Amino acid sequence: MAWGTFNFRSKALNMPVEAEVLIPQSGYKSLTQKDNYKVIILLHGVRNDRTEWLLKSQIFEMVKELPVLVFMPSAKNSFYVNTYTGYKYMDYIAKEIPEFIKTHFRVSDKKEDWLIAGSSMGGYGALVCGLNHTEIFGNIASFSGAVDIADDVLQIPEFNMSQLFGPDHGNLSGSSNNLFYIYDKIENRPRIFMCCGASDFLRPMNERFYEKIKDLYDVTAYWGEGDHDFIYWNEQLKNMFLWFCPDEIRNGCFMGRCGNDFC
Amino acid sequence: MAWGTFNFRSKALNMPVEAEVLIPQSGYKSLTQKDNYKVIILLHGVRNDRTEWLLKSQIFEMVKELPVLVFMPSAKNSFYVNTYTGYKYMDYIAKEIPEFIKTHFRVSDKKEDWLIAGSSMGGYGALVCGLNHTEIFGNIASFSGAVDIADDVLQIPEFNMSQLFGPDHGNLSGSSNNLFYIYDKIENRPRIFMCCGASDFLRPMNERFYEKIKDLYDVTAYWGEGDHDFIYWNEQLKNMFLWFCPDEIRNGCFMGRCGNDFC
Amino acid sequence: MAWGTFNFRSKALNMPVEAEVLIPQSGYKSLTQKDNYKVIILLHGVRNDRTEWLLKSQIFEMVKELPVLVFMPSAKNSFYVNTYTGYKYMDYIAKEIPEFIKTHFRVSDKKEDWLIAGSSMGGYGALVCGLNHTEIFGNIASFSGAVDIADDVLQIPEFNMSQLFGPDHGNLSGSSNNLFYIYDKIENRPRIFMCCGASDFLRPMNERFYEKIKDLYDVTAYWGEGDHDFIYWNEQLKNMFLWFCPDEIRNGCFMGRCGNDFC
Amino acid sequence: MAWGTFNFRSKALNMPVEAEVLIPQSGYKSLTQKDNYKVIILLHGVRNDRTEWLLKSQIFEMVKELPVLVFMPSAKNSFYVNTYTGYKYMDYIAKEIPEFIKTHFRVSDKKEDWLIAGSSMGGYGALVCGLNHTEIFGNIASFSGAVDIADDVLQIPEFNMSQLFGPDHGNLSGSSNNLFYIYDKIENRPRIFMCCGASDFLRPMNERFYEKIKDLYDVTAYWGEGDHDFIYWNEQLKNMFLWFCPDEIRNGCFMGRCGNDFC
Repeated sequence: MAWGTFNFRSKALNMPVEAEVLIPQSGYKSLTQKDNYKVIILLHGVRNDRTEWLLKSQIFEMVKELPVLVFMPSAKNSFYVNTYTGYKYMDYIAKEIPEFIKTHFRVSDKKEDWLIAGSSMGGYGALVCGLNHTEIFGNIASFSGAVDIADDVLQIPEFNMSQLFGPDHGNLSGSSNNLFYIYDKIENRPRIFMCCGASDFLRPMNERFYEKIKDLYDVTAYWGEGDHDFIYWNEQLKNMFLWFCPDEIRNGCFMGRCGNDFC
Repeated sequence: MAWGTFNFRSKALNMPVEAEVLIPQSGYKSLTQKDNYKVIILLHGVRNDRTEWLLKSQIFEMVKELPVLVFMPSAKNSFYVNTYTGYKYMDYIAKEIPEFIKTHFRVSDKKEDWLIAGSSMGGYGALVCGLNHTEIFGNIASFSGAVDIADDVLQIPEFNMSQLFGPDHGNLSGSSNNLFYIYDKIENRPRIFMCCGASDFLRPMNERFYEKIKDLYDVTAYWGEGDHDFIYWNEQLKNMFLWFCPDEIRNGCFMGRCGNDFC
Repeated sequence: MAWGTFNFRSKALNMPVEAEVLIPQSGYKSLTQKDNYKVIILLHGVRNDRTEWLLKSQIFEMVKELPVLVFMPSAKNSFYVNTYTGYKYMDYIAKEIPEFIKTHFRVSDKKEDWLIAGSSMGGYGALVCGLNHTEIFGNIASFSGAVDIADDVLQIPEFNMSQLFGPDHGNLSGSSNNLFYIYDKIENRPRIFMCCGASDFLRPMNERFYEKIKDLYDVTAYWGEGDHDFIYWNEQLKNMFLWFCPDEIRNGCFMGRCGNDFC
Repeated sequence: MAWGTFNFRSKALNMPVEAEVLIPQSGYKSLTQKDNYKVIILLHGVRNDRTEWLLKSQIFEMVKELPVLVFMPSAKNSFYVNTYTGYKYMDYIAKEIPEFIKTHFRVSDKKEDWLIAGSSMGGYGALVCGLNHTEIFGNIASFSGAVDIADDVLQIPEFNMSQLFGPDHGNLSGSSNNLFYIYDKIENRPRIFMCCGASDFLRPMNERFYEKIKDLYDVTAYWGEGDHDFIYWNEQLKNMFLWFCPDEIRNGCFMGRCGNDFC
């Protein structure tokens, strides 16, 4: 596994950005073959940054033997939308980053090989970016996502939501940023993985969202015990890999069990 | 929690070195009080580096609410000894780093507040550095340590042990690098935490070492199921924190359960 | 010289932040003596980040033998003010960072030992933060600063200034963010270093500002040939060190001339 | 310009390694065209690491507008040879890294587009790796290189040369590690850039080497005033770019003069 930190320039944001990238290294033996790695864009939660999943979960250990590239960007407290104040985070995440990845790395360009995932604010981000960009993402994973942004998350004063959506939150309810508004207007529906633990304060909104989408989408949901933290998300991350790349896991190895020191 | 990567110069090694540091941030509110954080020097395994524990375990998540500074150095495949070929890794780890930490950070200088820990090669390193430097370390933790270096690990050809110990491995058996030779010659014995899973190929040597030390040292040992990997070590890491800082855990919070977003 | 990248949490900004730090290493030999290093907070330009000075100038090489700590934060395109949209960058730079530095490092707390410096947007930032926080900074250095923000810089549409200062830019002209408004209202005036090259498009505003302050402040100004780039700023950086720490340079060594391999 | 730090695994060294990479970003606009960037592998001096050129020179600023990828590895105090004690640094630098670069980046695979360069120990490293691997490198640049390793550098006791070359330095004089031995045995001779300042203690050995090669190779040499430091090397770096990519500089821009904010 190669691990890199990239510092590059985003036009959508008009500033430099940084991202963590996990790159399967085994593939670098054969130059003649285009490797077609799968891709996961993995999003952090509010008040966090690109290092959150790397530091708090065992994503590194889990992915190291799989032909999957993981790209972890930072997005401040933006909720991954194009904000009213002019920061185009959704464009950065769902347009600019896929272009950057396809240019610099040997990845698949088939949407069924692309997953956007995240926890909490990042779970909402994965859904809102993924549903609005079905031309890129064939798969979405939300870990305890803040899915009901219009009726619920919006009320938390410290998130300063008027910056994101404008005075009086503009037309959030009827906009493409409201998952409960757009879920039934999407064509080419991606597969969805979602989970939320029993003790999580976001559990009710996740149950509500699941009820809405369960008959329209190919959804895999995990519930069970758990809080709004990386103890639960680290457990669920294994389920996400089993859902996203069952063939690669079956044919290869997973979670350090292969005995290959160089994995 | 503040997280830093340091690049600095080691005199013992005559070259620049890098280390990862986790620093409790809550303490930075009160300048008047010397904080006396506890310290963990945490060592990686063979063919790895300073980022191993950070990437593969949940150490970040576990320590974030504790008044404990974690310092993770790199030591190549040195087994943490002063090598025959002149690289003084033990001096770097057990003399130079403690001096660096005490100079730059607000830590305790009492040996009962200092722990040296590691897995595999790093478990041996923790024991060999800790037992040879009881003036610094009051606590040692070995996760599936390669403890029997003289009679067993030495036989693995790819580790190139003659570089470390000299032609014919010099006097390794009767030297301070052989844990089975020095264990009963140590005064001011540190507390020891050790663990090794049932499926681990190093299990027998760990059992042998435990038999030797169990009556001479204050040892806490965990066995149970498990392999030679970070799935097991991540589980045991929780036990290590409960053993090393039970009061801090009791009075504070542990593993993300406090609900404090700024932990 | 030790070099570190810190990732920590800012309360003023309600999110994680990162900074580069250069720390004199020679001092770590003597634990008994409080070292009282001087401090430079060094600010980047628009569309850049904390790595700009490190990558584009020879600051590392210049400072390595001096007892001066250099702290380089990121501030997006904020112009280092507390923005209308609620991002308190000035509080982060001029309150929170000095507290962080004084807590974690062995620095002087005398204001004559503290310098805030920067180029372009960062030159304005150094002046606006330094003049509004004379309790911290006894010295300010502006390299080709965007000093006339109210009448000139404000007109550049891509900087999205209404985010920073509010609709119609609020009361920018008569506010503490306008250097031309506050320069004669400051008590306890810091020493000022400023420079701007002949070919620089910001030269006229720098000449105008110099005329305003030259009789009220202890100003050292460099002009000469030069463009708005790091070729010029790297040259002027030497002048800044000669101005900020002449005694340390006289008694020690500067710019790699000491022949000490461990500098 | 994108800047990345990579952590990956070297088989030649049997351990993880890290490298800094500067990647031209402008090219990422056109996916249809293979970009064929030129490549520079840039080597550090003794007691330094991969960050030396990045921190001490203005390489970042100089290369940012050129279609040239710069790769900066670490090699400890190895002098970039395959050492007697089993560390295959030359294989890592001259075989493994080119393979890694060709796999992961959109670079040219023509040897006239590849340059290996370095200063001091790295100048020797560039020459010894470049002359022994003319199948990869069509260009070599030595900044004040420690070129006469067999008769001169070898005498410096602190470099611990017996580790590198074996007891009594083995057959160093008559080996492929001795530049004065191999210079006239090379076929397919690369172009060579070399420089050394008048005050440099390595000046005499560089003059001696220049006399040997000047009629056999296409050599461009700079002398002039200067010491063994990055003040001189930073000046000479501009000459090296003019020598290595004159067409790119003529057609594009160099040293920040283009006025393109996104360079």
